Amino acid sequence: MIYDFTYENPTRIHFGKSAMSYLAEELKAYGKNVLLVYGKNSIKATGLYDQIMNILHECGKTVFELPGINSNPRYAQVMEGAHMVRENGIDFILAVGGGSVIDCTKGISVSSYYEGDAWQYYWVENGPIVNKTIPFAAVLTMAGTGSEMNATSVITNEEKKLKIGRTFPLWEMSPKFSIMNPELTYTVPIRQMVSGIYDIFSHLMEQYFSGDDDCTTDYLTEGVMLSLINAARKALINPEDYEARSNIMWCATMGLNRILGLSKTQDWEVHKIEHQVGAYTDCPHGIGLAIISPAYYRYIYKYGLPKFIRFAKSVWHVEEKGRSEDEIALEGISRLETFIKELGITQTLRDIGATEEMLPLIAQSTAPGGGYKKMNAEDIMVVLRKSF
Amino acid sequence: MIYDFTYENPTRIHFGKSAMSYLAEELKAYGKNVLLVYGKNSIKATGLYDQIMNILHECGKTVFELPGINSNPRYAQVMEGAHMVRENGIDFILAVGGGSVIDCTKGISVSSYYEGDAWQYYWVENGPIVNKTIPFAAVLTMAGTGSEMNATSVITNEEKKLKIGRTFPLWEMSPKFSIMNPELTYTVPIRQMVSGIYDIFSHLMEQYFSGDDDCTTDYLTEGVMLSLINAARKALINPEDYEARSNIMWCATMGLNRILGLSKTQDWEVHKIEHQVGAYTDCPHGIGLAIISPAYYRYIYKYGLPKFIRFAKSVWHVEEKGRSEDEIALEGISRLETFIKELGITQTLRDIGATEEMLPLIAQSTAPGGGYKKMNAEDIMVVLRKSF
Repeated sequence: MIYDFTYENPTRIHFGKSAMSYLAEELKAYGKNVLLVYGKNSIKATGLYDQIMNILHECGKTVFELPGINSNPRYAQVMEGAHMVRENGIDFILAVGGGSVIDCTKGISVSSYYEGDAWQYYWVENGPIVNKTIPFAAVLTMAGTGSEMNATSVITNEEKKLKIGRTFPLWEMSPKFSIMNPELTYTVPIRQMVSGIYDIFSHLMEQYFSGDDDCTTDYLTEGVMLSLINAARKALINPEDYEARSNIMWCATMGLNRILGLSKTQDWEVHKIEHQVGAYTDCPHGIGLAIISPAYYRYIYKYGLPKFIRFAKSVWHVEEKGRSEDEIALEGISRLETFIKELGITQTLRDIGATEEMLPLIAQSTAPGGGYKKMNAEDIMVVLRKSF
Repeated sequence: MIYDFTYENPTRIHFGKSAMSYLAEELKAYGKNVLLVYGKNSIKATGLYDQIMNILHECGKTVFELPGINSNPRYAQVMEGAHMVRENGIDFILAVGGGSVIDCTKGISVSSYYEGDAWQYYWVENGPIVNKTIPFAAVLTMAGTGSEMNATSVITNEEKKLKIGRTFPLWEMSPKFSIMNPELTYTVPIRQMVSGIYDIFSHLMEQYFSGDDDCTTDYLTEGVMLSLINAARKALINPEDYEARSNIMWCATMGLNRILGLSKTQDWEVHKIEHQVGAYTDCPHGIGLAIISPAYYRYIYKYGLPKFIRFAKSVWHVEEKGRSEDEIALEGISRLETFIKELGITQTLRDIGATEEMLPLIAQSTAPGGGYKKMNAEDIMVVLRKSF
């Protein structure tokens, strides 16, 4: 822990089968007009919509609805929500869904009373919060982004072909509370479940693969990696294995509630590349990450060799015997690739709709960054071609 | 994560060499009359006292002082502090020291305006908070208890020969902020450093050795155990190794900020036994824990064999080959015992002042509990005799 940090986290987590029983009590602290934000029709099919509407009505709330949030939430949807907040004097926003719905909700909260161009000011320029924000909370139905316990919001601007993640000040832009019942994730299609699992694993690696100091945080991260691999394998066999789904859900939250980034330099280049792949192809986030990762890590591992060796040994139990250092590190990346296949993710960038012509556009529009190696557009092109 | 839980944590952590620079800004939120609580003379010898007094005076605070808090803080000292709060209209308490000073401060905060017998009501009966509490914060000078990011207070009632730990509601009885500069721990005598290190390790085991479900929390705990063992060995060689001391400090905080207890049944019997050993002998807490642990774990391991095998393999890298399950588990406990000796802790209960006559009194007064095995006074006597 050699780098200084300040840590706090304002979100209250209610986790488990009884989590929803806390909703009514929590709602008492907030005003009458509630905006319910959710995705497509799945929460209606499962009965969750009715359950939550009943609780809201029993609490005397007037409910307004913004359905149809995309899996890559769009700035136009943020603007639509912001308009609804102003028109209806919304006091509180309840996000019901996965990370996309929560991210969109954060966008609505901060944009509703901002006079200027919220996209430019908040997501592009990282401007400070200058306006009234609307308190919000989440009922989580999908494990992945960790948005339920942080202040990050990833929004896609379709017009500008940009997908940008912004981390806001914690106290304004974290959920006041999050209701996390792992059973609610049972009905998520397997394809989305594995996309979420890989998103979690990628968050862990983005924070882990940087720095050469001995840091307690890295040991914690290895623990979460081991737990996630184990739970993912069980959930693939039986998606209604409560123990496995609950571990996956908590790995997601721990994966991005800032604890696994404390005192760390970090990488995040796989996410930055994927964000632009997503802006061009609208692919599921976790699938995009999984496609890019093996090529990216093979491209950079030499620059952080000791950490990649540690990853191979601690996380994938690669035996040192008879292997050179490079072989140990590369075997770790191969095991990661095997895990991606176990998850059923076998596509290339081409398979998810990227074209040859898009590659330089993606590379050029990706924010430069990186951990062990600083990446420029040329470097990114190599990774994209290998993933194509 | 099969057991439901609610998690939140209100404490803001400022960690690192620059941590003290946040004190003045933080103090602005609180009133003029500050009670400074600290231990013996060490903070005066190191210059820390002058540094903090200067900041307090620059912030326009009127400072009252309660020095001399014992390493096992006494209820009489809590009462003395409570009296000072009432007499002087204290608005804020600043604890400067280790866990004992912070625990005493929590006691003062909750007891100052309680009309009845605070000891009986809060520590014995676990009564709810019914009175005005005083906000407080910590400047940490020793790593161990984790009191800097939780709402637990362990107080010794000398008259009644009882040492009792109480966990209060989080928002009232957690530090508002904690200033954690690992450099401040350099001047702690080695004997106290190792006592703190073992206290941390014991917190990890108390939470870990219970339950037979697959739980993400246990993987996180193993990560902290591995980091702590590694950092402890480095700090023993060079107590001014910043990296090592900073990892130890963060292991302590993570070890008891509730994250490593989430969704867990827990044990805590070693602590309960040690509390009564401490009530009779006033031994340093971590030393008492280290003396009791090997005998305790050898006494109970058969009741939680799979977890003790996992502990041996994951934490101590015990090879399975050629060993029976019992032998693997026992080898793990032997490695723990070796680690205790590495820390320089070689005493028995007799060496720290316990007498033959005390043992049944300690056993009888220990709160019953336990994880894999429910312990009664007879069981505890066996452990005490083995540790004598």
